[in-house]
Amino acid sequence: MSPHRTADLGFARLDLDRAERTGTPEVVYAAGKTPAQTVACLAALLDDGAALAWATRVDAATTAAILERWPDAVLDPEARCAFVGELPTPVGSVLVLTAGTSDGPVAAEVAATLAASGVGCRRVDDVGVAGVHRVLAVAPEVAAADVVVVVAGMDGALPSVVAGLTDRLVVAVPTSVGYGAAFEGLAALLTMLTACAPGVLVVNIDNGFGAGVAAARIARSAQGRAAQR
Amino acid sequence: MSPHRTADLGFARLDLDRAERTGTPEVVYAAGKTPAQTVACLAALLDDGAALAWATRVDAATTAAILERWPDAVLDPEARCAFVGELPTPVGSVLVLTAGTSDGPVAAEVAATLAASGVGCRRVDDVGVAGVHRVLAVAPEVAAADVVVVVAGMDGALPSVVAGLTDRLVVAVPTSVGYGAAFEGLAALLTMLTACAPGVLVVNIDNGFGAGVAAARIARSAQGRAAQR
Amino acid sequence: MSPHRTADLGFARLDLDRAERTGTPEVVYAAGKTPAQTVACLAALLDDGAALAWATRVDAATTAAILERWPDAVLDPEARCAFVGELPTPVGSVLVLTAGTSDGPVAAEVAATLAASGVGCRRVDDVGVAGVHRVLAVAPEVAAADVVVVVAGMDGALPSVVAGLTDRLVVAVPTSVGYGAAFEGLAALLTMLTACAPGVLVVNIDNGFGAGVAAARIARSAQGRAAQR
Amino acid sequence: MSPHRTADLGFARLDLDRAERTGTPEVVYAAGKTPAQTVACLAALLDDGAALAWATRVDAATTAAILERWPDAVLDPEARCAFVGELPTPVGSVLVLTAGTSDGPVAAEVAATLAASGVGCRRVDDVGVAGVHRVLAVAPEVAAADVVVVVAGMDGALPSVVAGLTDRLVVAVPTSVGYGAAFEGLAALLTMLTACAPGVLVVNIDNGFGAGVAAARIARSAQGRAAQR
Amino acid sequence: MSPHRTADLGFARLDLDRAERTGTPEVVYAAGKTPAQTVACLAALLDDGAALAWATRVDAATTAAILERWPDAVLDPEARCAFVGELPTPVGSVLVLTAGTSDGPVAAEVAATLAASGVGCRRVDDVGVAGVHRVLAVAPEVAAADVVVVVAGMDGALPSVVAGLTDRLVVAVPTSVGYGAAFEGLAALLTMLTACAPGVLVVNIDNGFGAGVAAARIARSAQGRAAQR
Amino acid sequence: MSPHRTADLGFARLDLDRAERTGTPEVVYAAGKTPAQTVACLAALLDDGAALAWATRVDAATTAAILERWPDAVLDPEARCAFVGELPTPVGSVLVLTAGTSDGPVAAEVAATLAASGVGCRRVDDVGVAGVHRVLAVAPEVAAADVVVVVAGMDGALPSVVAGLTDRLVVAVPTSVGYGAAFEGLAALLTMLTACAPGVLVVNIDNGFGAGVAAARIARSAQGRAAQR
Amino acid sequence: MSPHRTADLGFARLDLDRAERTGTPEVVYAAGKTPAQTVACLAALLDDGAALAWATRVDAATTAAILERWPDAVLDPEARCAFVGELPTPVGSVLVLTAGTSDGPVAAEVAATLAASGVGCRRVDDVGVAGVHRVLAVAPEVAAADVVVVVAGMDGALPSVVAGLTDRLVVAVPTSVGYGAAFEGLAALLTMLTACAPGVLVVNIDNGFGAGVAAARIARSAQGRAAQR
Amino acid sequence: MSPHRTADLGFARLDLDRAERTGTPEVVYAAGKTPAQTVACLAALLDDGAALAWATRVDAATTAAILERWPDAVLDPEARCAFVGELPTPVGSVLVLTAGTSDGPVAAEVAATLAASGVGCRRVDDVGVAGVHRVLAVAPEVAAADVVVVVAGMDGALPSVVAGLTDRLVVAVPTSVGYGAAFEGLAALLTMLTACAPGVLVVNIDNGFGAGVAAARIARSAQGRAAQR
Repeated sequence: MSPHRTADLGFARLDLDRAERTGTPEVVYAAGKTPAQTVACLAALLDDGAALAWATRVDAATTAAILERWPDAVLDPEARCAFVGELPTPVGSVLVLTAGTSDGPVAAEVAATLAASGVGCRRVDDVGVAGVHRVLAVAPEVAAADVVVVVAGMDGALPSVVAGLTDRLVVAVPTSVGYGAAFEGLAALLTMLTACAPGVLVVNIDNGFGAGVAAARIARSAQGRAAQR
Repeated sequence: MSPHRTADLGFARLDLDRAERTGTPEVVYAAGKTPAQTVACLAALLDDGAALAWATRVDAATTAAILERWPDAVLDPEARCAFVGELPTPVGSVLVLTAGTSDGPVAAEVAATLAASGVGCRRVDDVGVAGVHRVLAVAPEVAAADVVVVVAGMDGALPSVVAGLTDRLVVAVPTSVGYGAAFEGLAALLTMLTACAPGVLVVNIDNGFGAGVAAARIARSAQGRAAQR
Repeated sequence: MSPHRTADLGFARLDLDRAERTGTPEVVYAAGKTPAQTVACLAALLDDGAALAWATRVDAATTAAILERWPDAVLDPEARCAFVGELPTPVGSVLVLTAGTSDGPVAAEVAATLAASGVGCRRVDDVGVAGVHRVLAVAPEVAAADVVVVVAGMDGALPSVVAGLTDRLVVAVPTSVGYGAAFEGLAALLTMLTACAPGVLVVNIDNGFGAGVAAARIARSAQGRAAQR
Repeated sequence: MSPHRTADLGFARLDLDRAERTGTPEVVYAAGKTPAQTVACLAALLDDGAALAWATRVDAATTAAILERWPDAVLDPEARCAFVGELPTPVGSVLVLTAGTSDGPVAAEVAATLAASGVGCRRVDDVGVAGVHRVLAVAPEVAAADVVVVVAGMDGALPSVVAGLTDRLVVAVPTSVGYGAAFEGLAALLTMLTACAPGVLVVNIDNGFGAGVAAARIARSAQGRAAQR
Repeated sequence: MSPHRTADLGFARLDLDRAERTGTPEVVYAAGKTPAQTVACLAALLDDGAALAWATRVDAATTAAILERWPDAVLDPEARCAFVGELPTPVGSVLVLTAGTSDGPVAAEVAATLAASGVGCRRVDDVGVAGVHRVLAVAPEVAAADVVVVVAGMDGALPSVVAGLTDRLVVAVPTSVGYGAAFEGLAALLTMLTACAPGVLVVNIDNGFGAGVAAARIARSAQGRAAQR
Repeated sequence: MSPHRTADLGFARLDLDRAERTGTPEVVYAAGKTPAQTVACLAALLDDGAALAWATRVDAATTAAILERWPDAVLDPEARCAFVGELPTPVGSVLVLTAGTSDGPVAAEVAATLAASGVGCRRVDDVGVAGVHRVLAVAPEVAAADVVVVVAGMDGALPSVVAGLTDRLVVAVPTSVGYGAAFEGLAALLTMLTACAPGVLVVNIDNGFGAGVAAARIARSAQGRAAQR
Repeated sequence: MSPHRTADLGFARLDLDRAERTGTPEVVYAAGKTPAQTVACLAALLDDGAALAWATRVDAATTAAILERWPDAVLDPEARCAFVGELPTPVGSVLVLTAGTSDGPVAAEVAATLAASGVGCRRVDDVGVAGVHRVLAVAPEVAAADVVVVVAGMDGALPSVVAGLTDRLVVAVPTSVGYGAAFEGLAALLTMLTACAPGVLVVNIDNGFGAGVAAARIARSAQGRAAQR
Repeated sequence: MSPHRTADLGFARLDLDRAERTGTPEVVYAAGKTPAQTVACLAALLDDGAALAWATRVDAATTAAILERWPDAVLDPEARCAFVGELPTPVGSVLVLTAGTSDGPVAAEVAATLAASGVGCRRVDDVGVAGVHRVLAVAPEVAAADVVVVVAGMDGALPSVVAGLTDRLVVAVPTSVGYGAAFEGLAALLTMLTACAPGVLVVNIDNGFGAGVAAARIARSAQGRAAQR
């Protein structure tokens, strides 16, 4: 049946064939792991022959531990990601929009995930619906993209507007930006789930990684289609 | 000090001077009252000299009881309102927008409240952000209005977009239209409270009456200003 | 710019160019509309030249009104959908899985949406994780599909397991099936949003229509790719 | 159509014509921005010719960065606002009431917003309903105001009482003051949304800025009317 | 130790000495019991020698079953209570206030509980804070009472105002009156729990019985004090 | 590996080897199934050789359909369960306690599940903590039981008290009995999850079936131990 | 009418006649006030002739500021209270029970409030229902008290048990002690509101002050009664 | 009746006979206690003759205080537990599974509790359902265990899958691992409560201690049974 080798590190049981099985390799989620555990996971993945090993949600201590072990690791501080190995050549094109400047770190995690997945990314920040003409102005970029990722906190209204303008799928990422009745991203999450335009799919609050993985799959599929025309 | 005569009906204590004190007369909220209680309240207000007495949230039984007592009462079934007496001549202009057809009954309550308050109303339905050009198309009506009331359920995103287009105040009314994560209007309520554009003020879910009262006050104030120019 | 003709029916403002703009035509959401309003919307869409007009969440009264006007309308009672006109020839293949029998009506809405969107659908019911071998047994169907829609209530655990088995995107639909701490679908919704496997995208509780629209877009894109190989 | 020039700073896309379009200029929300980003936004607005540029929710680091760039910037530490440029001459009169001393910072943000918007403000603190005679004692100030902003945490009961005394609109601001079942302002928010007196409009928890913008619009409108009498 | 005889009816285990132990007899909560079960419970209490047996939350079927068994039972349809036996002579005085007419049934349950507990009751309805002079007008009744029970739905603001006027304890009863953000009484409950005036004690939503029991104990205690002076 | 034959009925995929694999057969959850579907499931299980087939949450229509097909089916209306086939001889002893009479139907579902699982059951109703001596009085029954199931709504306090008295495991079942702040069983659920005594394990609100299955497993295990002594 | 002099400190408006009007003086809630503001409030109350001025929720900085101004102030660090002036001679007796040691600080606030209110207090800690005999063992103290205050976090079950043992009123104080599903005191709050025994009245989470004020009023009333016997 | 000696330390009232009564000794919950209080509780338990005294949720300060008093105390930093005295010889076997590495500390608390309870434990980490073959691979360990404890955060889906594979009881422990819609463990808690497979029993979020106590009781019971075969 489907492949399922694992590497047992005691505290972790790495799923070595996940990339073959699901198209996405096991990625190390560093939150809740010690720096040593994250380094050990990355090393085990590289030992198994991965061209690129990769951790998300890295803090300063973990970053230092990674750099000590692999001085040429690539760091993306805004996205809180670290990469050891070779980033693939990007194909396709995902448009990443943010409603406001404060949504930047989550959009950066989307972009980093796309880069590690070998998919191209164009990012346009701060096009919230309070100035809807900014949204209309990016219509050409929307039309040129394989899929659109929309990152928004507070009222989370941007995906509804974008989805009404295009036949591209919209992957909506609510963020915890805001205060009071934003309830740490709950308001934006509910807005996106009840978007009045179809074609909006939602991931967890602040989950730039998940949005990037999904967008990469759609973009690769769309590139296949485009090539064939 | 300020006037405060009351009429004691036993089950109710009508605030007879509320119109003089607050500009809005005591209006009978029929939900939770028997038909006989609603009729008694209306009668007491008329007995005190009101030119117009008025009930909201009337059901079929209450409507029948009102018509039996006052055969020439004016009924608005969509708004679930009943009026006994003379509607004032409207001045000013409030624009009432709905995001979808299902928001109609709440918009109707706004309109009925404006009519009873002597303020003019123009209603444009079904201009949700899934087709944002419909919103842009009503820009002339927005510019001509004294204030805009926006009624929306589901994602509740319409007020954010409208407020970004105008210097008019936006009174936002979330509705219980929707299902699932709309949570009976909670999603729309949170969206409106966290609207990324300033100038949005919010009332309770489905509270067309409250929105109408507030819009009437703003419109009368704006009419004063316009007349003076 | 992008096309945006509308048909103003008074109570509704139909977005006639939505299909051209977004790939999905305006579909009539019958909940909250009178039977006459739904019929009028369908008629306006057909008058504008649509080959197929279509309503979701139709009840018995609306069904009767549609059949009276268009005796050859196609009805899908399990999905609560009605179609007037020609269903397109299906291409591609979406796999629709349900965790339990009670999730059937939502899966039926997914299937009806796919049919109206011209995309093929294979549905396998009742493969919940309480018997995980049932899930493993559908691995061939998963591998053959362009995208997988997973419909589940109660614990909502099925999408996590499926997403770990495949490189297909998983569109997860929480349902309101269950009682107590299922909280009308909230438990399943939260489970799906926090799925430990990437590649899961979530729609609103019981939103078979939204899942169907998204799956159709992905499948058409994937078919483009497949054809080219 | 309506004006919509933007300034693209990369991380931000400033809406330069917002003041012309909506009567309120783009204001820099400093929370979630680096000090350098906030300074860059203010500079871009001033470069575009604004007489006054303005940031809210500034912390110590951002304050220092602003003062370094513009030594004559005006700071309001209680309101956490910073102003660069000329404050307009105030017209009209808004009454700002607080229920308790702890609501002060939010009331200060209301007052700062009014000052920057060119509207006069009178603030009376600590008139909560536990001593309702304190509320009655401000009746003359209420009567003299164009609009009343009521800032309250904990039970949030003050707007209901004030709205019953006056024909002025009441803009209600729930605050996160309190503990336990105050749930970070949720209790006050729900109280204000369900106020038994009409004429109460609500903004987000702790949103002094939004309340100030709305009150300024109402006051300017009311001043127009008053002048004409 | 303390007395604890029980009557075992199979489906119920009546606590026969509860009156002796706690001052309040076992009262039959009819919701969730069949009419026959309620009748059997009342009969067992009377068989044990109780002068008065008493059921709350009785519906039409249970009422009929009680009247068939005890034709001279006393029914209070507004309070949904039924009494079999002798009501005691009332002493002391509890003031029961309601914020609105719709709060009547809960206030009636308070009054019925007081009557069955042998405590006098004066009820004044519809003195909500939207007309705060109505509250001030009942100051003499407040001063004359041993304790005040305040029944309010929607914003639930009345107890805060009353508690600021008096040294009497205020027993606050939130009701499920209201809609939208009233959330079935949650808004009023939170308001009362966070009342800015001390001296407010809260019971469950719609729990007129619990408020009546508590008020009766306080009133009896206060009567003891008054008599002694 | 472990056995996993299934019966594919189209709308359902029965897990025929669940009993062998997990010790509990596939039981038909009738809520959300048509009467015909429930009958078909029961028939398929019997056709596969089950000595007993069994459905929970049956309503009147389903009950009638079952009786029409199997006139000698055993019905338990209080528990809403139906059994076709032979009930096993009970071994062991589970004590089922309820806090109040209204918790009876859930306790009945526990008892029916135990009966179908071949485990003995003793049920004592209405021993809530408002009369804690009733709890102490059942100490001998607690000591004689293999495991105790405690069913309680409203405050859900009974499991905490029972678990402090015994070394038996307590399986706690919150019920939706109560009103207001009971929030359909949420209050009892949270109480049980935070019980101050260890040894309390919790199932879903109103989930008598799940509690019965778990208790049966514990009791059978304990009987094994007892027999060996 | 009732007395209502105030002291206007700018940031605060002290209610000088609150003691005369409500029996409880204005007490300074130090959370959310600067140390200087708290000192100024205390000074103003003493200047007005109060024999005792008093602040709650004081932190280290405020404590230092108070001691600098009034070196003989009395501090209660566990209760986070500070007193300036003379504590009255206590009369009557309130029993304060805690379910666990961690509830101590809230119980200390109750005790400090009683001391400042001139009412006697006996405190017994750590009598949670996991060892129900500890509860039964304090029955003599319960019987000797005028009123019982029960402080409990986690499951909050103690008030239900105590109220079933006595004819004293139980003032229940939920605390934020616990983790997970305790949800910062919400679990205990809901438990207490739905207590199955009548005679339980509830205050806000961690509100030892409010419980103390209420208990003091009941105790003084009960002392009146006892003296007369 | 049952034994109930207590040790009164003033701030605590230790339940000395809890082990005899319930099979689990009083264990000191150090959160919310000062280091000195925790030490005093441990000393009192040892003074009473306990062979092992034990504290959970110890921080660094408490750990230091314990080591100062008992230099040979055994510390488990991952589990945040401290033991003074002799650990019993383990019998039986509990399998503890975690879904991810971050769930480790809670699993460690389960293991420490089992060790202190004299029950054997095998722990396998990081077998989440995103790689369901990892779950299937532990089937032999599941079959060899007396009971399975499953610790999982985020989607909390692992217990549903495990329970479908075995006739062992599954004790499910939701953890607060995750972000956004994980809501501090709420998502996992709801998933586990609504698990579609019977045989799942749930404890509070992060409650490794409670899970360990319950598993120990089941394992001891099962060992009895196994020995007899």
